Amino acid sequence: MTLTIEIYKHNKEERIARTWGTTARGLPYVEEAITNAGDWLIGGDLEVIEPIKYNDGLDQYRLSPAQLREEFARRNADAVFAFQLRNPVHNGHALLMTDTRRRLLEMGYKNPVLLLHPLGGFTKADDVPLSVRMKQHEKVLEEGVLNPESTVVAIFPSPMHYAGPTEVQWHAKARINAGANFYIVGRDPAGMGHPTEKRDLYDADHGKKVLSMAPGLERLNILPFKVAAYDTKHNKMNFFDPSRKEDFLFISGTKMRSLAKNRESPPDGFMCPGGWKVLVEYYDSLAPPEGSSKLREAVAA
Amino acid sequence: MTLTIEIYKHNKEERIARTWGTTARGLPYVEEAITNAGDWLIGGDLEVIEPIKYNDGLDQYRLSPAQLREEFARRNADAVFAFQLRNPVHNGHALLMTDTRRRLLEMGYKNPVLLLHPLGGFTKADDVPLSVRMKQHEKVLEEGVLNPESTVVAIFPSPMHYAGPTEVQWHAKARINAGANFYIVGRDPAGMGHPTEKRDLYDADHGKKVLSMAPGLERLNILPFKVAAYDTKHNKMNFFDPSRKEDFLFISGTKMRSLAKNRESPPDGFMCPGGWKVLVEYYDSLAPPEGSSKLREAVAA
Repeated sequence: MTLTIEIYKHNKEERIARTWGTTARGLPYVEEAITNAGDWLIGGDLEVIEPIKYNDGLDQYRLSPAQLREEFARRNADAVFAFQLRNPVHNGHALLMTDTRRRLLEMGYKNPVLLLHPLGGFTKADDVPLSVRMKQHEKVLEEGVLNPESTVVAIFPSPMHYAGPTEVQWHAKARINAGANFYIVGRDPAGMGHPTEKRDLYDADHGKKVLSMAPGLERLNILPFKVAAYDTKHNKMNFFDPSRKEDFLFISGTKMRSLAKNRESPPDGFMCPGGWKVLVEYYDSLAPPEGSSKLREAVAA
Repeated sequence: MTLTIEIYKHNKEERIARTWGTTARGLPYVEEAITNAGDWLIGGDLEVIEPIKYNDGLDQYRLSPAQLREEFARRNADAVFAFQLRNPVHNGHALLMTDTRRRLLEMGYKNPVLLLHPLGGFTKADDVPLSVRMKQHEKVLEEGVLNPESTVVAIFPSPMHYAGPTEVQWHAKARINAGANFYIVGRDPAGMGHPTEKRDLYDADHGKKVLSMAPGLERLNILPFKVAAYDTKHNKMNFFDPSRKEDFLFISGTKMRSLAKNRESPPDGFMCPGGWKVLVEYYDSLAPPEGSSKLREAVAA
């Protein structure tokens, strides 16, 4: 066996500029993995001898692309639609996924299967950790918000780059490899706020646009998101209807997290109760018990 | 006729970062055309009603892609190889072009034609202006350094971006449109020094690498440059021979310009005499006559 190893210069400035379209300080993945990395990179062919086990109680969700393709075949899927997420599943997400399945059935597919593929690598500090999200996703299936018969849940082992139109190509291409032929894409996929200016880093439509043009994605059918929001008239998540926009409430990820942190309840029908409980318990476990810091101070003093 | 006009935000930071791989100040094209541009861009289908005339004595060289393809057909070319340049042609360039023709003949082509395609738009201040370069190219053909029978000279009407691996894709793709099927590419094409750091902005091999991978360029055959340098043993430009590297003299564009500016002669065989004369006359026309600044001072005082 001959090893072909390539060693090359790590031009961090060029890598960052071309990947994120900015070199401003404060990009989460750059600070996590690039700024302090070395000045040289090494590449070459990889041979995976054994799958990596994390022994964190989540290994059953760590399916390789080959294992996922086998699972879809075992279920006799004739269409696989993938949903990328790094947040808890609320009923707006669920509406989108069930509606996608409905549309695929209408298109003539007999057994469309959803790949619910939460991102399992690095996320920024205020995102909900993977173990909590996986518990939340379990509840969503247990409580029938998504149908376990037509849903495969697996961990997508990538770190989150928050690199918008660049990253969404990776997100989509990786799911093709895992057997998906439909990919649901929303507004500003993998985007974030500009790290130093008061604006979004990316144009909200660029992700979708890039997916429709990127080479290597010809086999993938892009399903653009409809926007779902909380419909205060029907007390449930619904597709946004601009003709009665005053009825709709947009609940962002940030808003959702701050409600759970403060043990406030979201409006009825925003998320299944079991899933919401997982989030509240997580934030409870972070907050020190009431008065505890005072007590500790008293002891320490 | 309906007009479809698209108006969109000019995200300068993202455009610069993704095009140049840096946002450092001092990029020539950015300062010329982007920094002071507006915050909105307009796009849509263009209809060219009449070719633009510059009336600068060079319009006969301004051939459209369709005109170029007609010209190659008229000459019965069975292969067209393009050479991008923004500098005067020295005998090293000429060696490369004549050697490429020789290789194409060896490959079985009967009538390979060279498209000598100097860039006609914006270049940085210390580059030689287009009108001077065109005069110099005329001399190179007149004095037989390149064969007029198998050479088409035309102006490539693009501005120079100095954007290395990004720009070389544009340079190559534009020549495919004009009928070329072979493209000669050298070390660090369209590259330059980093505007604020003491290093090249791009890896010297990335341009070639990107060309070999870029979608839409499958029809183009990339011909990598051999490096030519002045061979002091044979008093001519020759392909660099590493086994006797001490015999070779590398004369950069900067060095060439400074020789011409100072009315020094380059080594024999570096450039045809008529071509060199054009450069010296150009720099003479820039320099104030000897002693003139003193005289003017005296008058003004």
